[in-house]
Amino acid sequence: MRDASKSAARAAAAAGSGATATVGRIFKVVRDRGPLAASDIVRLTGLAKSTVSVHLDRLRAAGLVKPDVLPGGKRERLKVAANVGSVVGIDVGQTHLTAALCDLEAVVLDRRRVPLALRRQGPGEVLDKAAALVADLCRRAGVARGQLLGIGVGVPGPVDFARGVPVSPPVMPGWDRFPVTTRLAKRFGCPVFLDNDVNVMALGERDRGVAQGADSFLFVKIGTGIGAGLVVHGELYRGAKGAAGDIGHVGLDGSTAACPCGNRGCLEVVAGGAALEAQARAAARTRDPARRSRYLAARAAQRKPVDAAAVGLGAAAGDEACVALLMDSGRAVGSVLAKLVNFFNPSLIVVGGGVAGEGGVGERYLASLREAIYRRSTPLATADLVVKRTALGEDCGVVGAAVLVLDEVLSHQNVSKLVGRRT
Amino acid sequence: MRDASKSAARAAAAAGSGATATVGRIFKVVRDRGPLAASDIVRLTGLAKSTVSVHLDRLRAAGLVKPDVLPGGKRERLKVAANVGSVVGIDVGQTHLTAALCDLEAVVLDRRRVPLALRRQGPGEVLDKAAALVADLCRRAGVARGQLLGIGVGVPGPVDFARGVPVSPPVMPGWDRFPVTTRLAKRFGCPVFLDNDVNVMALGERDRGVAQGADSFLFVKIGTGIGAGLVVHGELYRGAKGAAGDIGHVGLDGSTAACPCGNRGCLEVVAGGAALEAQARAAARTRDPARRSRYLAARAAQRKPVDAAAVGLGAAAGDEACVALLMDSGRAVGSVLAKLVNFFNPSLIVVGGGVAGEGGVGERYLASLREAIYRRSTPLATADLVVKRTALGEDCGVVGAAVLVLDEVLSHQNVSKLVGRRT
Repeated sequence: MRDASKSAARAAAAAGSGATATVGRIFKVVRDRGPLAASDIVRLTGLAKSTVSVHLDRLRAAGLVKPDVLPGGKRERLKVAANVGSVVGIDVGQTHLTAALCDLEAVVLDRRRVPLALRRQGPGEVLDKAAALVADLCRRAGVARGQLLGIGVGVPGPVDFARGVPVSPPVMPGWDRFPVTTRLAKRFGCPVFLDNDVNVMALGERDRGVAQGADSFLFVKIGTGIGAGLVVHGELYRGAKGAAGDIGHVGLDGSTAACPCGNRGCLEVVAGGAALEAQARAAARTRDPARRSRYLAARAAQRKPVDAAAVGLGAAAGDEACVALLMDSGRAVGSVLAKLVNFFNPSLIVVGGGVAGEGGVGERYLASLREAIYRRSTPLATADLVVKRTALGEDCGVVGAAVLVLDEVLSHQNVSKLVGRRT
Repeated sequence: MRDASKSAARAAAAAGSGATATVGRIFKVVRDRGPLAASDIVRLTGLAKSTVSVHLDRLRAAGLVKPDVLPGGKRERLKVAANVGSVVGIDVGQTHLTAALCDLEAVVLDRRRVPLALRRQGPGEVLDKAAALVADLCRRAGVARGQLLGIGVGVPGPVDFARGVPVSPPVMPGWDRFPVTTRLAKRFGCPVFLDNDVNVMALGERDRGVAQGADSFLFVKIGTGIGAGLVVHGELYRGAKGAAGDIGHVGLDGSTAACPCGNRGCLEVVAGGAALEAQARAAARTRDPARRSRYLAARAAQRKPVDAAAVGLGAAAGDEACVALLMDSGRAVGSVLAKLVNFFNPSLIVVGGGVAGEGGVGERYLASLREAIYRRSTPLATADLVVKRTALGEDCGVVGAAVLVLDEVLSHQNVSKLVGRRT
């Protein structure tokens, strides 16, 4: 299947939309817009009723679509048979490794999460851990070899998507050009796809999060690092070298803080999780009443961690210095987003990642971010702009990785081949 | 034809790629990649040889494709029959109105250019002038009513492309929501399409300029105003409100100059043509030897215009103060582009507009712009980045407007309809 999928991808790339067979197009419409009645599909595709009918029969025979049971529904509506196969999404984080078994609609059926020290553990060790999680998930769910349709992996660094390898990832020593997809594909005998973690999260939001139905949007992750994923007309836009969305190293007006990348004033070094941790420690230590945090000082005295998460807890507890630190971060990220809003004119920005917080803290963070965007973007660009928090929370990475692999193995080309073989 | 084209566009928007008929797809491949042999088309589309053959016969019978005559060529290759119809591209500038009659490959057959004072003359007067130019071009070339397939118009302001109206354009008083396309369509009985001038120029570069073959790129116009056009996977990306690419009002690090938009430190007010003119006048007046321009002072004494063009002439003549002014503008634009390069990761940036100059001056301007980009973007994002000047020069706007209308009237949906009617 892996080679079939690769040659299908190559054929599609060469032909543009040329190689699209009708059955694949019909499946895509059901996947994107279903449940749908046959008449809806006729309307949406412009195909003849008889054509749609023939191909729906083929998709049903292949087990890829099934009726959506609605009480009292008059017309039969069809949807993807989500349980006909499974995929696994893997989220490689700096401190945790998470894997989830998902159905064909990227709904999480089961998940496993283990601690990780990505800066210390090499790719061999991490991928062994990941493989153990995948094997464990499959065993628990009774998914046999051959039933696993594919594995998607998100990593915190630049990726050459076509080759399935990380490219000089700054926080992943030893991973440069490591054959991640080949290694896992050999182990599990299924296609494996690798992408940057933020790109993957954008896909998760598009299919199962708050960006469903958005034509084009930005996903912004504000965690230890800061990055963005761009979805343009429903598709991930990766850029010429797979580096699109790398906003963590955009220069911030007026800042001269040194960044490990070699430049000064990068957004990440001013507003990211590591910066927040340094600022939190300073706020715990300082005697300056305007900047001192009683909350963080108390934590330091109790030998509890004083980090970005502690700032969130402090802000939630009403500590003013913690609130100020978070709002400074929000405004810094917002000032960069303001420029990108003028340039890209999205209708939606989805914000995720640990620093952006949850609940009330998250709302305050978002408010400062929005304020900076609205203050410095043109009125036309922000006319209908919505800035939302992710609704997927910690699942965002694994769900996105599942969507990554579903997009590939359920591409219209592959579905056409699959149905051709089965019927 | 206008209504047909509109309803085709609506149908296509509703159906995604669904409504694409095969004959339209084949024509698109010939248009994008031709001249092509039938076997090339089979390879590129994945369609059966017999299918390609049938549809090529239909396209030939309709007069839309014709053989490309090659001396000694063994295989017959087909290309678009560029002379089967004409379109007109109109470039509405702040000081000039230009119209060009083009063939179906957007090659300029004839052009007319007249002076304009866009800030003073209202839409009625300007469109009357434009209509006179169109009528004149058609008369001179013997193009009868019905042979003109469409008119494309580019204007220096935001446009609601679907409705064919400008939206609160700051430098076009009286044009807000003015029915530009309806007015011209009624007069000439053909479809008319309106877009922002920079978007239109990006299309010109894509089809007939230095961006041919580029998958995704940025076109940046540095004239009186500063703006960008984004092409993503070969298609113009207009953004949620048609405002994508509005980089003239991105805030510039450390600048506090007041902009007519109400904000401070906008790129345009620091580095655009109007800013350069103000800086030129100051350089002609000042006694400060570090900033004084002998060249501009001499022009002022001779009562010649001291404006952005004069700065270019001065720089070409070796005047150091003029060179410094141009390089400051290049660096300012480059510092904003550096952020966008991190975000969008294009493989190509095409630079046009009066300030970017021509010949040696243009090369120096580009050098300072490139320097600022490379200094402040990530190495991965600039790994293969190329920054080029437009090769279309003053024709860029009219050629782009012709491409705009060709993209619409020769869309695969329309070609399918056209061939269906004729054969």
